[in-house]
Amino acid sequence: MNYTAEIIAVGTELLLGNVANTDAQMISEALSTVGVNVLYHTAVGDNAQRLEEVTQIARKRADLLIFTGGLGPTYDDFTKDVVCRTFGKELVFFPDAAATIQHYYDTVFCRPMPEGTLRQAWLPEGCTFFRNDAGTAPGCVFEADGTTVVLLPGVPSECTYMTQQQLLPWLRSRSPQVILSRDIRIFGLSEPKVQAMLSEVMDEAVNPSLAPYAKTGEVMLRMTAKADAEEACLRLMEPMLAQVRTILGDHIYGEDVGSLEEVVVRLLREKKLTLSAAESCTGGLIAKRLTDIPGASAAFCGGVVSYTNEVKHAVLGVPQDLLDEYGAVSEPVARAMAEGARRITGADLALSVTGVAGPDKDDRGNEVGTVFVGLSTPEGTAVRQLALGRGRERIRTMAAHYALDMVRRYLTDTQQE
Amino acid sequence: MNYTAEIIAVGTELLLGNVANTDAQMISEALSTVGVNVLYHTAVGDNAQRLEEVTQIARKRADLLIFTGGLGPTYDDFTKDVVCRTFGKELVFFPDAAATIQHYYDTVFCRPMPEGTLRQAWLPEGCTFFRNDAGTAPGCVFEADGTTVVLLPGVPSECTYMTQQQLLPWLRSRSPQVILSRDIRIFGLSEPKVQAMLSEVMDEAVNPSLAPYAKTGEVMLRMTAKADAEEACLRLMEPMLAQVRTILGDHIYGEDVGSLEEVVVRLLREKKLTLSAAESCTGGLIAKRLTDIPGASAAFCGGVVSYTNEVKHAVLGVPQDLLDEYGAVSEPVARAMAEGARRITGADLALSVTGVAGPDKDDRGNEVGTVFVGLSTPEGTAVRQLALGRGRERIRTMAAHYALDMVRRYLTDTQQE
Repeated sequence: MNYTAEIIAVGTELLLGNVANTDAQMISEALSTVGVNVLYHTAVGDNAQRLEEVTQIARKRADLLIFTGGLGPTYDDFTKDVVCRTFGKELVFFPDAAATIQHYYDTVFCRPMPEGTLRQAWLPEGCTFFRNDAGTAPGCVFEADGTTVVLLPGVPSECTYMTQQQLLPWLRSRSPQVILSRDIRIFGLSEPKVQAMLSEVMDEAVNPSLAPYAKTGEVMLRMTAKADAEEACLRLMEPMLAQVRTILGDHIYGEDVGSLEEVVVRLLREKKLTLSAAESCTGGLIAKRLTDIPGASAAFCGGVVSYTNEVKHAVLGVPQDLLDEYGAVSEPVARAMAEGARRITGADLALSVTGVAGPDKDDRGNEVGTVFVGLSTPEGTAVRQLALGRGRERIRTMAAHYALDMVRRYLTDTQQE
Repeated sequence: MNYTAEIIAVGTELLLGNVANTDAQMISEALSTVGVNVLYHTAVGDNAQRLEEVTQIARKRADLLIFTGGLGPTYDDFTKDVVCRTFGKELVFFPDAAATIQHYYDTVFCRPMPEGTLRQAWLPEGCTFFRNDAGTAPGCVFEADGTTVVLLPGVPSECTYMTQQQLLPWLRSRSPQVILSRDIRIFGLSEPKVQAMLSEVMDEAVNPSLAPYAKTGEVMLRMTAKADAEEACLRLMEPMLAQVRTILGDHIYGEDVGSLEEVVVRLLREKKLTLSAAESCTGGLIAKRLTDIPGASAAFCGGVVSYTNEVKHAVLGVPQDLLDEYGAVSEPVARAMAEGARRITGADLALSVTGVAGPDKDDRGNEVGTVFVGLSTPEGTAVRQLALGRGRERIRTMAAHYALDMVRRYLTDTQQE
């Protein structure tokens, strides 16, 4: 089945600009990995009549309609009712869905279900029910008059879970063609730079295709091959992968990995080394990202968030005269922070970050975006100075990226730029 | 003029999921401030036929159409052509627009204009031209057959500039109506519980309207009033606000605030108190959230991420015999962590969090989701035990919420549940 799709997001919060329609982006990206062509995104508010009209338009111009949002237990959750009415389906009670909702309350919320919760277990007759392990609203898929209709919850974490764990496997099972993607993750090069380096490869890329996806401070390349079997996809990808690896070299931090921190935790575990961190302007972001990874405790022992000079001195042991002479945002203090974190935690390696995230310059006149990143190892301590431009959140994210990449390069023995 | 609007984004990159449609969010939020009711968002690819069909649908269901994207100088930028064809307008050369493009090349790019650049200076006959000081593609607004059509560039920075500097002033000069919203933020009650408590208020809410928005672990209520002036909106909201405040009491942690951490930082600054944190299972998340707030350094001095027992003992001074006897996930260790963080950082208050975020039980058999949260103050140390169910990310988020709420309740002198 070669679908053309429309993604219909239901929720007044989208039309008020309260949130961006990230579900549509995430689903589109996911569908591109299974060869589904998305032609339209639509967002409509919590209004039954307009939702019905939108559904009528969509069924005429696409054959796969994916609805997000409005599946919850409350009065303004009527996506199922409207879609069923439009396609002439009844809502029927699904005991299996009810059981998973009950299970979620028992094991995750650990409290009794409020009245009305099991409204969510009523689904279109004849549908395939999509179990939701990330929340309580089940999803589903059904077919009617040549149109395939998918209902997914709108909460982004649940929508992502359902798309990856339920929708994609269901779509894959219906396609004779195998589509295989490989995500190549790159740090330290801008997207235009990656495109310029790979322009010849990209110009010739048909099957596999090669498309860049910009993320904050990094670039992802997705290589996608279509064939009748997985092995054929892999054979198609091999020569292009080799070219890309040669051209981008150690700017590639991983393939088919979740994040830079995932790579760092894996490398630390492989080498049986431990890491700690002393964070000033990143304020715990590096620790948070490393501990997002299950099993991080074997690699990351913790660290210090030293947001004031007092904590830098009292907890990390940064000498007061360094703080007085050079200020907190300086090479000597970054060095002393990394060495202090390594000493007090007993970790093999320690990172440090100190800088100006803004909105204002620091009291020494350092520009917003000035950041020092340090790495202390048994062989010594290195410090890099960065100029990360503007934007508090972006500066913090980039500083954490650079720090984690410094550890990755140390552990893989690749040259720092 | 009381507009109902549709925002139409043109660009295949949206349908591939390369970027989210942040323009639509930004424009929607801007329009809500001038009383424009956005009813639909649509995204369509760089395809002239589908764009024309989308435009035909939109003019039937909205009277203000805002197009973003496809105004550039290249072959796949044909939004203007398609929109003009649909509304029976000719494109004519605007010398003023050409002059601003030339000016941008002279003063910002500092290089000669490439051939074809001045295609951008051809605009619909009779339109009001929107000067673009953030890029080269001019925007415009025109009216045809009772429909108002706005064209804006798609690059987010340019789209934002044009919306704020050109579109909003143009609309304000035409709209007598004002919309005012108030966001009521709630912690400690589930969304169904909030709905049950407020069911009578919600049933009667027309103007102002009252709608709940679920976020991870908290609930937001948005009250929205429409009237001909700001004061009239405020008068409309006052009685319902009073009702909601009475019913929800101190579960409301703030109104029109960004987050629990923003409230905690503000309260700390008001009371001239400082906070630190000793984090185990949250791994830096509390510190990260507090330091997301600009100006946090006056209230949050930092803390320790003690992901291993060694760091709990060596850095926080948790007695080894407590760790041996009770294990890391226990009331006595949470207490000693909070007291240790307070002692070594010199902060007035200190939080601690220790628990099992999963995916597995800890070595003492504590269930996933078992979390102890402590708060040490000059008056003593309190520890709460929580059962947060499953899901690593959710447990960490909820543990941080509970910890921050503990500080909020201490600072506002409200009873812990």
